Amino acid sequence: MIKLRQLDTASSSFEADFEQLRHWSAETDAAIEGRVAEILADVQARGDAAVLEYTARFDRVQAQSMADLQISAADLKAAFESLPPAQAQALQAAAERVRRYHERQLEACGRSWSYRDEDGTLLGQKVTPLDRVGIYVPGGKAAYPSSVLMNALPAHVAGVGEIIMVVPTPDGTRNPLVLAAAHVAGVHRVFTVGGAQAVAALAYGTATVPRVDKITGPGNAYVASAKKHVFGQVGIDMIAGPSEILVLADGSTPPDWVAMDLFSQAEHDELAQSILLCPDAAYLGEVRAAIERLLPTMPRQAIIKASLEGRGALVLTRSMEEACEISNRIAPEHLEVAAAEPHRWEPLLRHAGAIFLGAYTSESLGDYCAGPNHVLPTSSTARFSSPLGVYDFQKRSSLIEVSEAGAQLLGPIAAELAYGEGLQGHARAAELRLKR
Amino acid sequence: MIKLRQLDTASSSFEADFEQLRHWSAETDAAIEGRVAEILADVQARGDAAVLEYTARFDRVQAQSMADLQISAADLKAAFESLPPAQAQALQAAAERVRRYHERQLEACGRSWSYRDEDGTLLGQKVTPLDRVGIYVPGGKAAYPSSVLMNALPAHVAGVGEIIMVVPTPDGTRNPLVLAAAHVAGVHRVFTVGGAQAVAALAYGTATVPRVDKITGPGNAYVASAKKHVFGQVGIDMIAGPSEILVLADGSTPPDWVAMDLFSQAEHDELAQSILLCPDAAYLGEVRAAIERLLPTMPRQAIIKASLEGRGALVLTRSMEEACEISNRIAPEHLEVAAAEPHRWEPLLRHAGAIFLGAYTSESLGDYCAGPNHVLPTSSTARFSSPLGVYDFQKRSSLIEVSEAGAQLLGPIAAELAYGEGLQGHARAAELRLKR
Repeated sequence: MIKLRQLDTASSSFEADFEQLRHWSAETDAAIEGRVAEILADVQARGDAAVLEYTARFDRVQAQSMADLQISAADLKAAFESLPPAQAQALQAAAERVRRYHERQLEACGRSWSYRDEDGTLLGQKVTPLDRVGIYVPGGKAAYPSSVLMNALPAHVAGVGEIIMVVPTPDGTRNPLVLAAAHVAGVHRVFTVGGAQAVAALAYGTATVPRVDKITGPGNAYVASAKKHVFGQVGIDMIAGPSEILVLADGSTPPDWVAMDLFSQAEHDELAQSILLCPDAAYLGEVRAAIERLLPTMPRQAIIKASLEGRGALVLTRSMEEACEISNRIAPEHLEVAAAEPHRWEPLLRHAGAIFLGAYTSESLGDYCAGPNHVLPTSSTARFSSPLGVYDFQKRSSLIEVSEAGAQLLGPIAAELAYGEGLQGHARAAELRLKR
Repeated sequence: MIKLRQLDTASSSFEADFEQLRHWSAETDAAIEGRVAEILADVQARGDAAVLEYTARFDRVQAQSMADLQISAADLKAAFESLPPAQAQALQAAAERVRRYHERQLEACGRSWSYRDEDGTLLGQKVTPLDRVGIYVPGGKAAYPSSVLMNALPAHVAGVGEIIMVVPTPDGTRNPLVLAAAHVAGVHRVFTVGGAQAVAALAYGTATVPRVDKITGPGNAYVASAKKHVFGQVGIDMIAGPSEILVLADGSTPPDWVAMDLFSQAEHDELAQSILLCPDAAYLGEVRAAIERLLPTMPRQAIIKASLEGRGALVLTRSMEEACEISNRIAPEHLEVAAAEPHRWEPLLRHAGAIFLGAYTSESLGDYCAGPNHVLPTSSTARFSSPLGVYDFQKRSSLIEVSEAGAQLLGPIAAELAYGEGLQGHARAAELRLKR
């Protein structure tokens, strides 16, 4: 019997129940932060020697030099060739679709543009790829080859010059599927280091590890703290919280499908959050029954149960419209619209990392191979941030070329405002360009 | 006599000199961080009451309630109407050009897009504005009305629902040009609060100040520390360092113009950085002479002198190509190409916040009214970040609609990879959609 809470928007306790459900603290442990600051400073000061020491201590990998912690392109290729054929084909098919989607993304929003004004002034933006990026890939129990594809392929499509991957190999155990994914995704160099020391090596550079311009990819609390610390020195993607799914259901999707979709989020870890919103009480009962029936068949049932009981919920709403409004308040990472008319509800959904439309669009298809990125904003950050994409591996420079005629028009405006701000140098620089 | 250092790329000490020139530490004072953390926690706990207390203490403004710290739309309008006509017109002309540029930016890179795959699967991205943003505007000596335009107008063009501005008014002194700019830029609500307490109010919300989704705008060390602290809870723009200009000159621009452009950066503050790169030694001498001659005529000569002597440099390069390469290493905030053929050099310039092409394009025209944003990445962050723009006030959601046929194609791929990662729930969610 699973203790999965059920909320009712018509209940007087709903707001309090809802706040409690949403509560999750992103506060980092102060002890972790202090330890991370030490590691970062040490790697900045001592470089490779410090990285080697921390790798020996935390990953129990003894290496004489950083050369021993590099994986050659030949080894990546060998890992790919060692895969069972079905796995190799699936990896390539997924990579192909992810690449194609990000190429569309580049076309849609990643090109330089400019125009000339009536006075002949050129204005625009030049879009260029980052020179070099670092991708953090977790090792050990949560090693996800699909994340290698999702981080490396948009960087590749953006035209990043060099992609450096770091992946810890606790006790020296290398995951062939992860290395094969690096091969397929065209990662340029791989170092088997992890933790805050890997983030430090990428952010500051060492004799062996080149300094990168941006670091992306998920990691544990040490990695997250290190990324937040080096932010500004290098770019970073979002600091990820626990994964989340929210399913909006009108009752038309088979309950087993929805139950399994909720499981597929809950199985990540105990803090993952799975929520179902539906205006049909009978359907909620059917999904609950499906959960009870299917749970014992799941190898990861202990994690799923802990996640559903701790952070999951079935929510009875007054209507689909209200369900959409609650979804906006949550701003979920993954949002499934398990409804007969998904396009009727989609315009009402303002905040979500990814929106999965219709009964056939299980989140897991998007996680692996539909094409869009699976690195998505968590913990309500979809209110202001976006999926990882080609744009994360590009930056823009404004282009301005003022003609002589334009300078006559703009000079007096700039000078007036500059004098108003007490910045006479600005004003006079504009005035010097005026014809006498 | 100004002690402005000159570097020579052909000198054996160049690399060491160059490193010293670039050195600038962004480390925040630990005492400031501790104080800021207290203020943030206090405002989170006590809301308006805490904001009122800190405002009384730091800005010496006694208010009974937050209502006294709000400026009405009518007051903003009155501030605009009180301006001298030339100032009002300049403000409107600048706003009009900035708005037009950002409308072009929206067209170029801010629209939703989607496509259908051969198997009928819909893929794309929905681009939506943020619901509500906060704009921090410094008060006191460095109050820049132009920054109000540069922060609020892209938010407006993006379609942000509500724009909240905070601006401290030390001793109750309100800057009419700043308030007029808020009127012109269509800011929805203004609170006369500042410092870490204002950032906290925007990030957490109080009874009076609504919680926002993102906070942009420059501020002092307390504001910067507070923004970095609340990052994740809300979005933020970059943490800005001192302002910088780099001028690439081929010797064809009047030396007085270049000298004044260097001043226009140096006059911001003593830590601002002005660098001139040129392959022509005689021209460097002419610019140096112009600096000596013009400096005594500048009202802010003390700041300019301190900035140029402390962080400025004239750099003799072997060629324009080498000058471009050095510019890329610096990744300057503002980059002027004061050359006869600016489009010859522009393709070589990979990293810069804004590129000003040709002798007539003084940085100050771009700062106020050319159209592009003047909020630009500093401290080499142009390697990985971009000018403030419409895209900073939008976020994206992936759209995925897998057809029944698509699910048959994608399901086996997703399942293969999910089993490979040990995530059976993901695999079975995909398999449930397969026809038996």
